[in-house]
Amino acid sequence: MMNRTAKQIRTEALNYKLMKKITTPTLLLNTKQCRQNIKSMVRKTQNANVLLRPHFKTHQSRIIGEWFRDEGIHSITVSSVKMAQYFAQDGWKDICIAFPVNLLEAQEINKLAAEINLNILIAGTQTVLLLDEKISNELGVWIKIDTGYGRSGISSEKTGEIEQVLAQIQKSKHLRMEGFLSHTGNTYHASSTQEIIKLFSEAKRKLIDLKKIYIKDFSHIKISLGDTPSASLVNDFSGIEEIRPGNFVFYDLMQHKLGSCSLNKIAVALACPVVAIYPNRKQIIVYGGAVHLSKEYIVDENGEKNFGQLVVFTNKGWRPLEENNKVVAVSQEHGIIQIDEKYINQFNIGDLVGILPVHSCLTANLMKSYLSLDGEIIDHL
Amino acid sequence: MMNRTAKQIRTEALNYKLMKKITTPTLLLNTKQCRQNIKSMVRKTQNANVLLRPHFKTHQSRIIGEWFRDEGIHSITVSSVKMAQYFAQDGWKDICIAFPVNLLEAQEINKLAAEINLNILIAGTQTVLLLDEKISNELGVWIKIDTGYGRSGISSEKTGEIEQVLAQIQKSKHLRMEGFLSHTGNTYHASSTQEIIKLFSEAKRKLIDLKKIYIKDFSHIKISLGDTPSASLVNDFSGIEEIRPGNFVFYDLMQHKLGSCSLNKIAVALACPVVAIYPNRKQIIVYGGAVHLSKEYIVDENGEKNFGQLVVFTNKGWRPLEENNKVVAVSQEHGIIQIDEKYINQFNIGDLVGILPVHSCLTANLMKSYLSLDGEIIDHL
Repeated sequence: MMNRTAKQIRTEALNYKLMKKITTPTLLLNTKQCRQNIKSMVRKTQNANVLLRPHFKTHQSRIIGEWFRDEGIHSITVSSVKMAQYFAQDGWKDICIAFPVNLLEAQEINKLAAEINLNILIAGTQTVLLLDEKISNELGVWIKIDTGYGRSGISSEKTGEIEQVLAQIQKSKHLRMEGFLSHTGNTYHASSTQEIIKLFSEAKRKLIDLKKIYIKDFSHIKISLGDTPSASLVNDFSGIEEIRPGNFVFYDLMQHKLGSCSLNKIAVALACPVVAIYPNRKQIIVYGGAVHLSKEYIVDENGEKNFGQLVVFTNKGWRPLEENNKVVAVSQEHGIIQIDEKYINQFNIGDLVGILPVHSCLTANLMKSYLSLDGEIIDHL
Repeated sequence: MMNRTAKQIRTEALNYKLMKKITTPTLLLNTKQCRQNIKSMVRKTQNANVLLRPHFKTHQSRIIGEWFRDEGIHSITVSSVKMAQYFAQDGWKDICIAFPVNLLEAQEINKLAAEINLNILIAGTQTVLLLDEKISNELGVWIKIDTGYGRSGISSEKTGEIEQVLAQIQKSKHLRMEGFLSHTGNTYHASSTQEIIKLFSEAKRKLIDLKKIYIKDFSHIKISLGDTPSASLVNDFSGIEEIRPGNFVFYDLMQHKLGSCSLNKIAVALACPVVAIYPNRKQIIVYGGAVHLSKEYIVDENGEKNFGQLVVFTNKGWRPLEENNKVVAVSQEHGIIQIDEKYINQFNIGDLVGILPVHSCLTANLMKSYLSLDGEIIDHL
């Protein structure tokens, strides 16, 4: 016998006309929520008087890029030369490739630098001289500073190395010092929102200290910081010139776990056909696995892996079920969803269910396009 | 001062002319090794008198498919309708889609079944009746049996459910019973080669027991089993008609860890530009991350995550450095490689290093094409 909640799930799903078009795993985009996420971040940075240079590696979409333009954004961040080319061809004139410059692509970088205001990152002492030989156009450079994350960049404590790079830039005919840039990726390992705010403040302080030292030689020196957790949780951006969050355009379960967003701000869900149901195991098997969602997972409070949270489709989009209804394992094409006993009889083979991704950047990169709730196909590089 | 080993690394890498063409992460394929892997498996199955129906989801390549044809292979396995279409268009006439049939694609399945000998999987009692309504062409069906892996399929103990499905197939005008099929994916969690062989034997025994029961009603009933670990390690395939390994075409670090292959049988390596070097941390940063390798990792004996093993390029391909030279972390585009102190000064910004992937299927799926060591571009769906 169906209980009321369960009946509701079926009815809502059946009513939803878009569903009929979908036969294979499809990344749905809630355009309204996505635009709302963009607007909120733009408003926040305007109020805080800091430039928003959004990271486009999350969406990699010209159409979504347009929504940023609608809000007055003109400067963007990308993570590859190919992405920079994709957006430059769409009219973006101020692009920072926020990845340690790949010398093997110097020719493409040089070409692009002739067309737009292109910025790259220097993440060590060896790079400037090698790069300078290979280019003939003006290129803005940021020195990537490691403020504690430990991935890439010159440690903020190694002022000798920083000075070496600054001296090399000063000598160069083509390179223009932009400032100090850091990615506080350690916020992703924070266990509380307070810790995220603290990590951001520490990174900011280290960069401001550097700026104070070198402002006398480089009067236009800027500070660029910011990932989605800190951009979402911090309100005080005083002392820095720009932030570069990207994920906030969609958010995801990882951001939700970190406290950066509520579940209803997540703007993408993977629609997956149900292909098998095992009531005894309280599991349904969907077509939707590692090649759609990625193998990224979060660990729940009870120590269980979560590769995505189950949502059901409604007339207006989707709504999440309780947290314990989740993808517990993925293989190449399969997802195994553990669900509450009360729901297990409410799904049929051939139904579509939705999955909120753990890491929307990786899911979008695998899916390579989006379907809006209005049925529009949206590009991805 | 360079020691001899270190000098050798640089010299070999510099001598390798193909390297000059590569500017971004590129999946290199050692054609000779790949063909050797194919030949070995074909020979083994011929000697064991079992049909090799290789899983093409690993390579998803028509050119590599051709190398299987060269060895006399005519029956293949895929994991999606799209893949089946891709290979059917290339002349493959006997294809099994080894994934619980997705009813939402019934129309495409029906169309393809008119053109080739198409087989699909039934993984539960609900599917047959729903499928039968939607098709008009003859379709071979395998009943997917769960022999202990716990992902999809009817448990081998639930003979009532199996009989229900068999009765439905018998009544159908379009469905033709092929046999019982299982994927012993639990071999991937085995801690020894003995355990893999044992898991395979247990699965085989369960399927043979089922066959004995139902052979009186279905005289042509077959048994299909096999993944790369068991196909590589087992020699006795008596009692089963076909095996469906896929990964062996490339192998990878996970297979090496399981004991399925030696390191030199791994036929793919991701070539990655070095973008930063941190001698103090004994780390180099490469352009090559989660969007190239995937986030799959193995855990080393000392409890450390390994996202890929470092190899250096030689005139003939590549050779692995010691196991502790490995990718210890990946983000979207970055890979962090931890290396021995003796090697740290031997790499320069702008060099190319190679990474043996943990899971070659996922890496190939992300990279979408291969570059052979002869400079030929090889397709991927």
